[in-house]
Amino acid sequence: MDKELKIFNSLSSKKELFKPLVKNNVGIYVCGPTVYSNVHLGNCRTFISFDLIYRYFKHLGYKIKYVRNITDVGHLENDQDDGEDRISKKAKAENIDPMQVAQKYTIDFHKVLEKFNTIPPDIEPTATGHIPEQIMQIKKILENGFAYEVNGSVYFDVLKFNKSNDYGKLSNRDIEELIHNTRILDGQTDKKNPQDFALWKKADPQHIMKWESPWSIGFPGWHLECTAMSTKYLGNQFDIHGGGMDLKFPHHECEIAQSEAITGKEPVKFWIHSNMLTFNGKKMSKSTGNNILPEEIFSGKNKKFSKSYSPEVLRFFILQAHYRSILDLSEKALAASEKGYNKLISAIKKLPGIIPSKEKGDFNEKDWVKRSYDSMNDDFNSPILISELFNAVKFINSVINEKQKMNLSQWSVLNKMIPIFINDLLGIKTAEKQTSNLDSKLIKTIELLIDVRSRARKNKDFEYSDEIRNKLFEIGISLNDDGDKTTYSIE
Amino acid sequence: MDKELKIFNSLSSKKELFKPLVKNNVGIYVCGPTVYSNVHLGNCRTFISFDLIYRYFKHLGYKIKYVRNITDVGHLENDQDDGEDRISKKAKAENIDPMQVAQKYTIDFHKVLEKFNTIPPDIEPTATGHIPEQIMQIKKILENGFAYEVNGSVYFDVLKFNKSNDYGKLSNRDIEELIHNTRILDGQTDKKNPQDFALWKKADPQHIMKWESPWSIGFPGWHLECTAMSTKYLGNQFDIHGGGMDLKFPHHECEIAQSEAITGKEPVKFWIHSNMLTFNGKKMSKSTGNNILPEEIFSGKNKKFSKSYSPEVLRFFILQAHYRSILDLSEKALAASEKGYNKLISAIKKLPGIIPSKEKGDFNEKDWVKRSYDSMNDDFNSPILISELFNAVKFINSVINEKQKMNLSQWSVLNKMIPIFINDLLGIKTAEKQTSNLDSKLIKTIELLIDVRSRARKNKDFEYSDEIRNKLFEIGISLNDDGDKTTYSIE
Repeated sequence: MDKELKIFNSLSSKKELFKPLVKNNVGIYVCGPTVYSNVHLGNCRTFISFDLIYRYFKHLGYKIKYVRNITDVGHLENDQDDGEDRISKKAKAENIDPMQVAQKYTIDFHKVLEKFNTIPPDIEPTATGHIPEQIMQIKKILENGFAYEVNGSVYFDVLKFNKSNDYGKLSNRDIEELIHNTRILDGQTDKKNPQDFALWKKADPQHIMKWESPWSIGFPGWHLECTAMSTKYLGNQFDIHGGGMDLKFPHHECEIAQSEAITGKEPVKFWIHSNMLTFNGKKMSKSTGNNILPEEIFSGKNKKFSKSYSPEVLRFFILQAHYRSILDLSEKALAASEKGYNKLISAIKKLPGIIPSKEKGDFNEKDWVKRSYDSMNDDFNSPILISELFNAVKFINSVINEKQKMNLSQWSVLNKMIPIFINDLLGIKTAEKQTSNLDSKLIKTIELLIDVRSRARKNKDFEYSDEIRNKLFEIGISLNDDGDKTTYSIE
Repeated sequence: MDKELKIFNSLSSKKELFKPLVKNNVGIYVCGPTVYSNVHLGNCRTFISFDLIYRYFKHLGYKIKYVRNITDVGHLENDQDDGEDRISKKAKAENIDPMQVAQKYTIDFHKVLEKFNTIPPDIEPTATGHIPEQIMQIKKILENGFAYEVNGSVYFDVLKFNKSNDYGKLSNRDIEELIHNTRILDGQTDKKNPQDFALWKKADPQHIMKWESPWSIGFPGWHLECTAMSTKYLGNQFDIHGGGMDLKFPHHECEIAQSEAITGKEPVKFWIHSNMLTFNGKKMSKSTGNNILPEEIFSGKNKKFSKSYSPEVLRFFILQAHYRSILDLSEKALAASEKGYNKLISAIKKLPGIIPSKEKGDFNEKDWVKRSYDSMNDDFNSPILISELFNAVKFINSVINEKQKMNLSQWSVLNKMIPIFINDLLGIKTAEKQTSNLDSKLIKTIELLIDVRSRARKNKDFEYSDEIRNKLFEIGISLNDDGDKTTYSIE
């Protein structure tokens, strides 16, 4: 299947056949969170998108090295290399150490992503943990003539770089035009050119997070950490670099420039960008205040929603859109996803209990499997995969309603593939998988009680069998007699 | 209350009145795990002990900065500065990046400690994340004349340090005697003296984790990371340094030497060491193989135990011993703790439902509160606090059994203080908080089955009552008949 995997490469702006640099191996770097506030749902969408991608490579049997960083220094309030460091600012406001801020929000990030059933990366490096690597890269860029030092700070020389390389190729920007459209520098900066970006910034005396370097006591520029960490763990050239669409420029453009300035080589084979989550039509972001915290939705505390929604439903909602499409969150859309999710889960729960017939139903199971894989091979198109799942649900329900039959081949393929598609590929927990030790004990004790009740009915002790049914109902377990067979549902 | 807190200081080998360096503030550093294997129960005891200490300071209203590191480089197979790096060795064995090893076991560590209801530290720095800080400290130690460089490695000169300072004061060792008892160096090392320890080690070419330094491409010695991280986040002098007893020498002794060599000042006011957990009388440690993984006990998979025990029971068991005493784990001891835990929980569940009387029972609630705090103020003596809780349980049960009365003052004090002592100070989750919706359904269906069985027994249908018992046993639920009453336990 994997030979057919096509990925939309932001660098070429088209879908390309995926070929790993090293056979059966794939190296993936994804820009992680800046840990200065609780992760909002827009961020989560990005990480869930890359979890989908990670899971698919895993399913295909690749040996994966998945690196996702934690930005705990260097991300300033705006992208123009000025303003305060976001984490330091929060630390000052709360009168605690910047690393306490980073720890608090790293824990929050992990907890939320765990609820969304995302798989942790294989390596999760921090920016502060890679200062020597960043300093070494700055030295190299200076040596190669693509940077200059002014007053203890070091800047990347974008214009010079653009003479031999192509600055702007990822985001399709023309540097000359960019410059033409930028107002003249006002003397407030050491930069030669407004497009230049900081590799190292000299720290003010009151600055908290700072390190020694050949140029000054200071801190690294935000763009550099990802170049340092991705190349350290994945090599100078690696397969996939991902991140939110908003990071394409300047962040990822600068990463390419830095790497090419160091090694002369294009660092990344496939650039993958996930699109944004909007809320009632507006971009979700911390800075605009138009953001939703996942916990508020799980708990039902967010007043913009009339009820709570589970992490499974939210994940399902997110994967019902392709990762490259804008997705708008609204109560209406979420409620529709919940309905769909429940319909899906309900059908797949009943599937194993269907007794295969000799007759074949009107459902081509082999085509269905192929179309499902085709959807994932077509740039991880999860909404198409989900619509294929609903095709299966339609067939399952029509078998349950005795409109048609399901033969053994259909039964086996569906029973084998549906959990793979839902649990493994989409990463959606179904009730079955969530079953704990206690749950399975509950199921078995209920079944034992159903046996007890059947015995009472056989003995014509209907008073007693009704008593058991009523007592179970009080506990929240409803029995449903269907001829000889009794099924149950737990409230 | 806090004015009376006395802590056993390993440095003076006696209990001392705790006074913070800065009023109402306390800085705590605890040596964290070396993340190259699953955390075993012996390690967990250490971290639960310091969680008890952290919780008590929190309860007393201190502003706490609690730093606990992750050792992800530099911890060699033995403490004599030779052997392989533990994490690199595991990485080679599994053919993955050392940082993948660190990530895997850091996640395991966090998960297990979360189950034990420990509060995460405020800062959790990594050794690899503090290479520049360590290099700066080595420079300073060299400058101050307490270290020497040989072939790209730097060693701490213990003999020289001991001339002006006291090496061995924490572990009560006499350096001259140590040297006298050590065999002569065999020429395999660059050290002047076997007691010297590495600050920086030059890396072999095949070594994976290495960094540039003024002396060589290499890696820091294990002892240095804790000096670098504790002083970076807590200052050159801080209140409390903790760790397992086995770290006292050489690790903590070396930390003191390093700090004094840099600043000339004693770094730590209070050294706290938790004692070890033995298993059936022998030390629990990864290296001897005599270790138990917590998950095996939670799940009941460890064959040395006949059943599973919950994290709450294990935590309760651990806190029933004073942190400075050796604690031996055995099934018998654990079963006794479980019984005690259940007795405690059962009584406190009934407490709010007691209707206060005008009459006072024979229980001095004010003295009881004082004695409870006294126990914690006496070097965090949790077993005494637990025995005070059992005094309260005895009183509560005698009120329930109508042997005596409880007046409003007694009722109010007990209802207010018991949750503080159990949940906040001991950090033990009580069943109320644990029971999920499904658990309570399971309990009710089991009770229903017990009723069904009682009915069968009344009808002399012993064959059927035995069948129900056997079927429940297969599910993992054991019934225990005691006269008319049947109790049960869930495996």
